[in-house]
Amino acid sequence: MTKPLNVPERILMGPGPSNVPHSVLAAMAQPTLGHLDPVFLEIMNEISAMLRTIFVTKNALTMPMSGTGSAGMETCLVNLLEPGDRAIIGVHGVFGARMVEMARRCGAEVITVEAEWGKALDPNEFRKHGEAKLIAVVHAETSTGVLQDLAPFRAIADELGALFVVDAVASLGGVPLDVDGLGIDAVYSGSQKCLSGPPGVAPVSFSQRALDAMAARKTPVRSWYLDVSLIAQYWGGDRVYHHTAPINTLYGLHEACRLVCVEGLDARIARHRAMSDRLRTGLLELGLNIAGDESTRLHPVTLVLLAEGIDDLKIRRALLNEYGLEIGGGLGAFKGKAWRIGLMGASATPKHVDVCLAALRRMLP
Amino acid sequence: MTKPLNVPERILMGPGPSNVPHSVLAAMAQPTLGHLDPVFLEIMNEISAMLRTIFVTKNALTMPMSGTGSAGMETCLVNLLEPGDRAIIGVHGVFGARMVEMARRCGAEVITVEAEWGKALDPNEFRKHGEAKLIAVVHAETSTGVLQDLAPFRAIADELGALFVVDAVASLGGVPLDVDGLGIDAVYSGSQKCLSGPPGVAPVSFSQRALDAMAARKTPVRSWYLDVSLIAQYWGGDRVYHHTAPINTLYGLHEACRLVCVEGLDARIARHRAMSDRLRTGLLELGLNIAGDESTRLHPVTLVLLAEGIDDLKIRRALLNEYGLEIGGGLGAFKGKAWRIGLMGASATPKHVDVCLAALRRMLP
Repeated sequence: MTKPLNVPERILMGPGPSNVPHSVLAAMAQPTLGHLDPVFLEIMNEISAMLRTIFVTKNALTMPMSGTGSAGMETCLVNLLEPGDRAIIGVHGVFGARMVEMARRCGAEVITVEAEWGKALDPNEFRKHGEAKLIAVVHAETSTGVLQDLAPFRAIADELGALFVVDAVASLGGVPLDVDGLGIDAVYSGSQKCLSGPPGVAPVSFSQRALDAMAARKTPVRSWYLDVSLIAQYWGGDRVYHHTAPINTLYGLHEACRLVCVEGLDARIARHRAMSDRLRTGLLELGLNIAGDESTRLHPVTLVLLAEGIDDLKIRRALLNEYGLEIGGGLGAFKGKAWRIGLMGASATPKHVDVCLAALRRMLP
Repeated sequence: MTKPLNVPERILMGPGPSNVPHSVLAAMAQPTLGHLDPVFLEIMNEISAMLRTIFVTKNALTMPMSGTGSAGMETCLVNLLEPGDRAIIGVHGVFGARMVEMARRCGAEVITVEAEWGKALDPNEFRKHGEAKLIAVVHAETSTGVLQDLAPFRAIADELGALFVVDAVASLGGVPLDVDGLGIDAVYSGSQKCLSGPPGVAPVSFSQRALDAMAARKTPVRSWYLDVSLIAQYWGGDRVYHHTAPINTLYGLHEACRLVCVEGLDARIARHRAMSDRLRTGLLELGLNIAGDESTRLHPVTLVLLAEGIDDLKIRRALLNEYGLEIGGGLGAFKGKAWRIGLMGASATPKHVDVCLAALRRMLP
């Protein structure tokens, strides 16, 4: 007979999930409510309000989707794209490539703007491709450790008559992201990165322009589960049943958002930067190579390029076995060639940085 | 500033979620692991093994999808249907109609077999419609309180050259369901019904015939997030990253499945039947009308037809306010005309039945 779980405590320093604070775990263990219970409806209101604060938006439709960050990505694309629509998508890592794959499955004609892995995209490249239904970029590419400057894209989207879609899975709550100020039309994130909530829900937010585009669709959204026009009737005023929300996970998200608001968004972002600087200094002292330029450095995830003689798997296994410490391996083009060290949310602390550096100091050849 | 959650305890007797046992809630509050942590991979193995026991199947690909029951429904349809495929779908309530809607969004040509609300489908009706890619029926229609006999459908599917798809959202763990014995090719369920797990994950299981049909597809699955061929690489042997699993919710599912196995599937099903009988007897003593025939009675959800003079909303509000007791209102054709009283999983106890009957006795006119 299967035994009850007895899960070890880990120091989570991969590209997500990050360590989940005790109060978030405890919130998830509160009693399950029905998805139409008035108490739960009020919890939903509070979650939406806090997400608006964290996204820096007044968008009415700001809510968590009932799936992980990739479900948030699919939500934005499947609701905005119809067969034959043109989508211009930036690809400079795994998650841009994932957007391309999803957009194609929506029946869209996809044009890619590419950059070398480890570099940022050149926004001007988007200008060359003519009118489009949307342009999409990844804000924080955790596969490369690059932060994309979003400032130029609204003007470009306007030139192309396009909606502006942003992947903020690993940036929300960890680096500056002013959704309204940047003129973003659709944005999605994950709960388990810089928010340090439980994995399983994907905060999204849509501008009025995005909602108008959805309302003007000529074909049904290809996914019923992720159809925003239906889900908005549950998260909006009418509370029409669509599917049973992941109640307890949303308790966890509520507490995670509350902790962001208590800390303050600016203070939290400054903490991510300070811890990233501390880690960077230590890694350089250890003689390790850090990928990317200072100007595009993603504070929540640092990419270490592995020199010859460093045994990737052996060291990561030893970190896990001896310290309970998880860092991420390379993904895509960096598979086997890099580490991804995350300092996100509750994992962005001096304790995390210093134990990681101390452990690496002992283990490096 | 938003306050920390302080969620009241409810007596959950709607059509789901059911009451979640303390040990399941506590399991969810265990520390979050990375989705590639060896300890978590072993937890995944245990979940799949327990789900095989509960589904009564040897299907290798038996796993929880990272979404609620409706995501399980969409998973089965979007992976098996391609544009132009014919799907014959039974409709005798809200959830059959939902399958039709999803199948159409997959581009399928949908033929419906209908039955009056409150009645079971006539399997022979499926025979009349010729060859099809799949036939699909809802085992436990919680919108009508009807249990569909699944025994005749494998032979019919064979006649039509079709796959046999079953919605077991509200039946798994509460009524007999022998997936292999019934020759089911694709089945989905929810975690928050008779399993009494946390809402947010959808157990699914696929026969080899279903996997072969997926492998023979000519077009990509319209959903990337729910693409079984990709997810199978994570839940199967290779452990290829697809998306971050809802780790803590899966801890809850692990414990919920464990409790089913400890109780024993037969004992659990007998308990659902006994509690349903106890409720039925009490409701009849109160002079209430129960919908449906004894032969198709769904033990986990009892449908009460409301006579003139019974104020639906007033009584349901009083149950919630005075007893913290939730029962469900009518859905679809039964909106405002019926109550749905659930006795599922940890909510199928004498305490639940008797407090509900006692409360109704005081409140009925």
